[in-house]
Amino acid sequence: MTLDSVLDRIDSTLPEALDRLMALLRIPSISTDPAFKSHCDSAADWLVSDLTALGFEASKRPTPGHPMVVAHAPGDGPHLLFYGHYDVQPVDPLALWDRDPFDPAIEDTDRGRVIRGRGASDDKGQLMTFLEACRAWKAEHGRLPCRLTIFLEGEEESGSPSLVPFMQQNAAELTADLALICDTGLFESRTPAIVTMLRGLLGEELTIRGPSKDLHSGMYGGIAINPIRVLSKALAGLHDASGRVTLPGFYDGVTELPEAIRAQWQGLAFDHARFLGDVGLSQPAGEQDRTPLEMIWSRPTAEINGIWGGYTGEGFKTVLPAEAHAKVSFRLVGEQDPHAIREAFRAHVRANLPPDCTVEFHAHGNSKAGHMRIDHPAFEQARAALTEEWGRSAAYVGCGGSIPIAGYFQTILGMDAMLVGFGKDDDQIHSPNEKYDLESFHKGIRSWARLLAKLAA
Amino acid sequence: MTLDSVLDRIDSTLPEALDRLMALLRIPSISTDPAFKSHCDSAADWLVSDLTALGFEASKRPTPGHPMVVAHAPGDGPHLLFYGHYDVQPVDPLALWDRDPFDPAIEDTDRGRVIRGRGASDDKGQLMTFLEACRAWKAEHGRLPCRLTIFLEGEEESGSPSLVPFMQQNAAELTADLALICDTGLFESRTPAIVTMLRGLLGEELTIRGPSKDLHSGMYGGIAINPIRVLSKALAGLHDASGRVTLPGFYDGVTELPEAIRAQWQGLAFDHARFLGDVGLSQPAGEQDRTPLEMIWSRPTAEINGIWGGYTGEGFKTVLPAEAHAKVSFRLVGEQDPHAIREAFRAHVRANLPPDCTVEFHAHGNSKAGHMRIDHPAFEQARAALTEEWGRSAAYVGCGGSIPIAGYFQTILGMDAMLVGFGKDDDQIHSPNEKYDLESFHKGIRSWARLLAKLAA
Repeated sequence: MTLDSVLDRIDSTLPEALDRLMALLRIPSISTDPAFKSHCDSAADWLVSDLTALGFEASKRPTPGHPMVVAHAPGDGPHLLFYGHYDVQPVDPLALWDRDPFDPAIEDTDRGRVIRGRGASDDKGQLMTFLEACRAWKAEHGRLPCRLTIFLEGEEESGSPSLVPFMQQNAAELTADLALICDTGLFESRTPAIVTMLRGLLGEELTIRGPSKDLHSGMYGGIAINPIRVLSKALAGLHDASGRVTLPGFYDGVTELPEAIRAQWQGLAFDHARFLGDVGLSQPAGEQDRTPLEMIWSRPTAEINGIWGGYTGEGFKTVLPAEAHAKVSFRLVGEQDPHAIREAFRAHVRANLPPDCTVEFHAHGNSKAGHMRIDHPAFEQARAALTEEWGRSAAYVGCGGSIPIAGYFQTILGMDAMLVGFGKDDDQIHSPNEKYDLESFHKGIRSWARLLAKLAA
Repeated sequence: MTLDSVLDRIDSTLPEALDRLMALLRIPSISTDPAFKSHCDSAADWLVSDLTALGFEASKRPTPGHPMVVAHAPGDGPHLLFYGHYDVQPVDPLALWDRDPFDPAIEDTDRGRVIRGRGASDDKGQLMTFLEACRAWKAEHGRLPCRLTIFLEGEEESGSPSLVPFMQQNAAELTADLALICDTGLFESRTPAIVTMLRGLLGEELTIRGPSKDLHSGMYGGIAINPIRVLSKALAGLHDASGRVTLPGFYDGVTELPEAIRAQWQGLAFDHARFLGDVGLSQPAGEQDRTPLEMIWSRPTAEINGIWGGYTGEGFKTVLPAEAHAKVSFRLVGEQDPHAIREAFRAHVRANLPPDCTVEFHAHGNSKAGHMRIDHPAFEQARAALTEEWGRSAAYVGCGGSIPIAGYFQTILGMDAMLVGFGKDDDQIHSPNEKYDLESFHKGIRSWARLLAKLAA
């Protein structure tokens, strides 16, 4: 089976592929809003129908929330599972859209042709790149180069409440040799990338209480403890002057970058001046002895995401408040243990409590960092495929945020996962005027066709 | 002229005095609400009428806000000016009152008889103690023991916008040998007190800005500066471990207590355990080498009155906010210079600013500490009069809050001021169910009768 004819077919049938994507984009499958429940169902039906037409044994699978779509097709090579999600973000504020978000269109822009509409990039456009690659293989050669399971979710934009139970209940059916996840992007919109490191996340909310009611600082100022002062002191003590987090044991399990990855990241020549300049900054503010890419991909952080207490309205009120609050989160890497760090944080706050103060903590979830096993041969095969398609050396990159599904494949199904995607930095996902570059869609399809060929080899 | 007959007359005419106070309390003279403007006017008219009946040459004097009442009466002794205010606080939340706030009544409670109603303590009941003392003197002896000017304001509860211009424009008419101010209380509800130290107040609001917009901590966490962290660090650095304020020069002009005052305060046996226990605290939280009374009366403070930034709603959002805010105030004593301390605070915050952060300050007013000149002979005369009436040694006390009028008499009119009042800690001024003890009213009138006799001597 030759790849070239598959690629040619992808090029010549792009208009039809676009028509199919447009049809899917017209379904307003907003998962978080109950008013759109039937549309989520319709999107699942559309996908079952398309996969069936493609020769898959496909079915819509009920959950307590929106349905899953699961499809199977035989093939010669290894067994791969492909994951994507058919639900989309809400569209408000609607007034900021230049067109109806569910009436998609191809638009010419000064940065090239784009597919405009909600879900174009996140994640309908991305998941269709894989389905179109399968379609071209099937049309050209009558069968797929690998055995495939397709697994499409309808709750990714609303917290995936049904995902873990569904994976647990259908573990045997969903387990394959490798999971492919298409929900990420190119590096700096130009370089093909495979995400191999995902930071974990730990959230804490705390309330520090002192006096039993708000006090007047004319009467009590100087003698009564002020919870805002206690909170400020505890939070200010989270970092030392060099930017390192001070919690005892915080860096346990944080590993240094492998030399090969370090060299690759240096080769990426990350333009941190532009990255920071886009948001009005000029200086990397993390640990002073780390590179900018390490700061956002491979180093852990402690961040204050919210703080409030006392009088916050117009004018002035000399109140000594009864309580003060903060929301704090930690990005985790390597083998950092979220539970140990939660305890270390709580111990730090308690150690900073003066007499008469109490603290109440509220946990906001936690996830360990994720690491793809890049010694799995599929990774170098995928890198080669992507490099051939995009004409730039594909990179193993990190991701500062969390993509829980990657961890679930590892922990629940015991399979490795590979994150490949073609989104660009300016796709405006989750925002008005979302778009997906025609180049991302076209070369994305071609990328998967090449990838399947390499993985089948 | 004998004092005894005056005191007897006060005792025997108390019912009529109460009737007059009730009439004044029925006028809803809420100064801050424009809907009550005509009622403020009525209260001023009522006082002009009562003072005229008392033999004063009294007039209502217009201002851009509510009118002042000024009245003069000849007398043999020194020229005294009496200050009080006829306006009252709003009454909301009305649902928390046990009766109509402007339908006052005498109530029996397990702590004795009280006059219940808005303004009973703050300040109509207090100002009427002085007028009733004058009435008794006049009735008994046909003339007053001192030359008197009465100066009553109608904007004290709404920031006194007309006060300083009026004092400046009428300086000659208002200047006397000594000002008497009746708007304070007994010490711990039991011991007669003359306030001789008032802390000053300096307010600052600050906004620290970093990124040009809110960022996602998955993308920028670790590389972007977080303004909440910058703010926490700056605020946490305001105090050292012993509770002292760290700003350079902050204690310039802070003087130690005179030995006589220190000894008197020790004699007061301040029950700080009860004072703190009432608000759920047990330990004085100020400078560790200071007594509780020093902390609230004679030591300066730095307090965070409000703080806010980032996500403060339900749940969790991993935002790195573009800005963070705080409101900070300083209670000042001695000769501390508010302008120098404002600059020291701003310099401290600026010194804590990392690259890419800016700070914007907004001044919220300032006042120096006030000191009454207790070497003026009137102070010991007043102390003796109060001690005779209440059967407890009257005390020179401090006041942690600010009473700007005392400073204005000194700075604008060049006259000393003496603060004497009979309010109790549980009077609930500014709150629902305000009351004034019948004892405060009755013994307050007797106190002023005695005071006038001593000052005339």
